[in-house]
Amino acid sequence: MERDVCGHCGHISYANPKIVVGSVVVHENRILLCRRAIEPRKNYWTLPAGYLEEHESPEAGARREALEEACADISLDLLLAVYSIPRISQVQLMYRARLARPHFAAGPESLEVRLFDWDDIPWPEIAFPSARWALEHWRQSRYGTVIAPFTNPDGATGDAR
Amino acid sequence: MERDVCGHCGHISYANPKIVVGSVVVHENRILLCRRAIEPRKNYWTLPAGYLEEHESPEAGARREALEEACADISLDLLLAVYSIPRISQVQLMYRARLARPHFAAGPESLEVRLFDWDDIPWPEIAFPSARWALEHWRQSRYGTVIAPFTNPDGATGDAR
Repeated sequence: MERDVCGHCGHISYANPKIVVGSVVVHENRILLCRRAIEPRKNYWTLPAGYLEEHESPEAGARREALEEACADISLDLLLAVYSIPRISQVQLMYRARLARPHFAAGPESLEVRLFDWDDIPWPEIAFPSARWALEHWRQSRYGTVIAPFTNPDGATGDAR
Repeated sequence: MERDVCGHCGHISYANPKIVVGSVVVHENRILLCRRAIEPRKNYWTLPAGYLEEHESPEAGARREALEEACADISLDLLLAVYSIPRISQVQLMYRARLARPHFAAGPESLEVRLFDWDDIPWPEIAFPSARWALEHWRQSRYGTVIAPFTNPDGATGDAR
């Protein structure tokens, strides 16, 4: 297990991988994306997602992130994917979801929130590889009612390209 | 986000939920269980499982835990379940697996490792609720080649009973 050094006193403690929870949120066959107001990848588009908090279930965390970043009340449908990005010690749980009410708006960490038709997704402006994977995996499985969650594409590490 | 206090100097840092990775390992239709040599739940039986390490994928972590706790070289089959235990801020990823070679033995954290027929599983001596869930979910889905991962049984928090 890798060790973390307290930034204040230099004491060594143990570091753990972090869990990111997020969603591909669909409304009337269009996909909700948020344009990031913060670094990293400010101005790029991404899915509503963020770090799971202590004492929170992954499902509750994914709903909270959609509320915080897109002011969107969402209903989770199923677990779409489990990705891992070992370089930065992240495990990502991505859900398939829909808007529970037809409302959304930019939260404090977003510059803009929009629904995109598949053909209009701004691929070169997607913030992270794993957001692209989740969109592509959503597309491949969007009619499935029971799916095995996807994992990283073969050999992909999730490092930003 | 909850905060963690450095045990050495009192400096506050942010705490994150922890990821546990483990497996229901099967060989000739019997299930591998480990009797714990350490607290908590010393002497009770459980699945090979433990904390994911930094820069490790969940699949690699599940294989490492089987090697450490049961000296077992395993092949993962599919993701069986994603459980969460909010009280202790754990997310558990449990895989369905099989012995890659017909060898196992007690590692340093196990008193004993055995293969059990389903009917011989010592239910009152199973260490954790989530190990029971994983065994039951394995049983329900053992002939499936594509499954949607199970989650906590309805309303269950995973706290030890």
